Amino acid sequence: MRVEIWSDIACPWCYVGKARFEKALAAFPHRDRVEVVHRSFELDPGRAKGDTQPVITMLTRKYGMSEAQARAGEENLGTQAAAEGLEYRTHGRDTGSTFDMHRLLHFAKAHGRQDELIQALYRANFAEERSVFDGDEHLVELAVSAGLDADAARAVLADPSAHADDVRADEREAAALGANGVPFFVLDRAFGVSGAQPAEVFTQALTQAWDARSPLRPVTGAVTGGADAEDAGACGPDGCAVPRH
Amino acid sequence: MRVEIWSDIACPWCYVGKARFEKALAAFPHRDRVEVVHRSFELDPGRAKGDTQPVITMLTRKYGMSEAQARAGEENLGTQAAAEGLEYRTHGRDTGSTFDMHRLLHFAKAHGRQDELIQALYRANFAEERSVFDGDEHLVELAVSAGLDADAARAVLADPSAHADDVRADEREAAALGANGVPFFVLDRAFGVSGAQPAEVFTQALTQAWDARSPLRPVTGAVTGGADAEDAGACGPDGCAVPRH
Repeated sequence: MRVEIWSDIACPWCYVGKARFEKALAAFPHRDRVEVVHRSFELDPGRAKGDTQPVITMLTRKYGMSEAQARAGEENLGTQAAAEGLEYRTHGRDTGSTFDMHRLLHFAKAHGRQDELIQALYRANFAEERSVFDGDEHLVELAVSAGLDADAARAVLADPSAHADDVRADEREAAALGANGVPFFVLDRAFGVSGAQPAEVFTQALTQAWDARSPLRPVTGAVTGGADAEDAGACGPDGCAVPRH
Repeated sequence: MRVEIWSDIACPWCYVGKARFEKALAAFPHRDRVEVVHRSFELDPGRAKGDTQPVITMLTRKYGMSEAQARAGEENLGTQAAAEGLEYRTHGRDTGSTFDMHRLLHFAKAHGRQDELIQALYRANFAEERSVFDGDEHLVELAVSAGLDADAARAVLADPSAHADDVRADEREAAALGANGVPFFVLDRAFGVSGAQPAEVFTQALTQAWDARSPLRPVTGAVTGGADAEDAGACGPDGCAVPRH
């Protein structure tokens, strides 16, 4: 079974939701047969690299919140994060473009280090004092902490086209699947969970998706009136069949 | 959409079937949204590393063919391969354990080079004079030709436990899906194609699987009587929703 998780590093509910999902997954009896893939979603795709601002300023300017509302939202997130055992700095965080982080996450995926890197990025953004938006070298350090090569990570960051299409393909896929917010969890492309639901909802989704797995429907040439399955060359423990045509 | 292909390097129909599938995929209108994953399947899982023999000898001893039958089978495969534009040596090939090649393919997958490596292994086994079963250094050379690091590939080969569980997990998954021969193609875990079918069968399978994609079924806490979807924290282009609970 495969679970795809669309998220953004700048999305606090993605940070919290990932922990809730993982709690459910850790207790799921078939967890060894569940593969998790992280997919890109930018909350603010129009933001330029280097254009950063305090989270509270962004919340008041972009979403028209009062400063008190914005601060209350951050406090609530801090409480929810703490309930999942996560550190969360409710004051003084920055926000900015996450495009390069998503490119780096695709590079990490190609090297089997995607989960390690997204965890490092979340931690840097939500729990650490140093801003994750303070330049490429910080991202290189986080990539190295996730087990990636420093020079290779630096080269990805220096080339704006590297993995850019992978990020955009994920975002198109999210739109095609009807996601308009994150986190967004998709199980076997059959079930969707929207938002940082409680762990029991993820347990329910894992169970439903597992139970919904059905036997494969065979596709053979017989349906088209052409060659039939018996005719196809195949090898098994008893040798290789030789088709008649 | 995801296509998983179970195959073995020692399986000539896998070599031919991959080319036929790729012909269909190249002409499929949604090819940019198709992800291909190669999965492990050993035709001869009991064979020890280093225990190699000529293909013709294996065919006569293991499957009780006459030498004439075995040679005719190889000639037929040569003809079928040539029809796909593939080179195929009908005389003088060896066979042996492919377990280490499958381990190396999982290592390549983790580095985004799986398709490159399987292609290099197929070519080495079916088209080149030098046996692909003649030792680790040959596999290291093939790994390098697929874009992998020589020392890292050497380390994988030297450690029999590296990616061994990945190989066995793929093989268990094949059994769970009902595959008893290869190549075996699985589309979105919903449709199966067995054998080196003609390209038009793969076209039909891709089309059927594409058309069978259905909207995601949402899973929300409302079903359990607990929290409901409206209550889940999520962030979208208009900000982050704050749950009431």
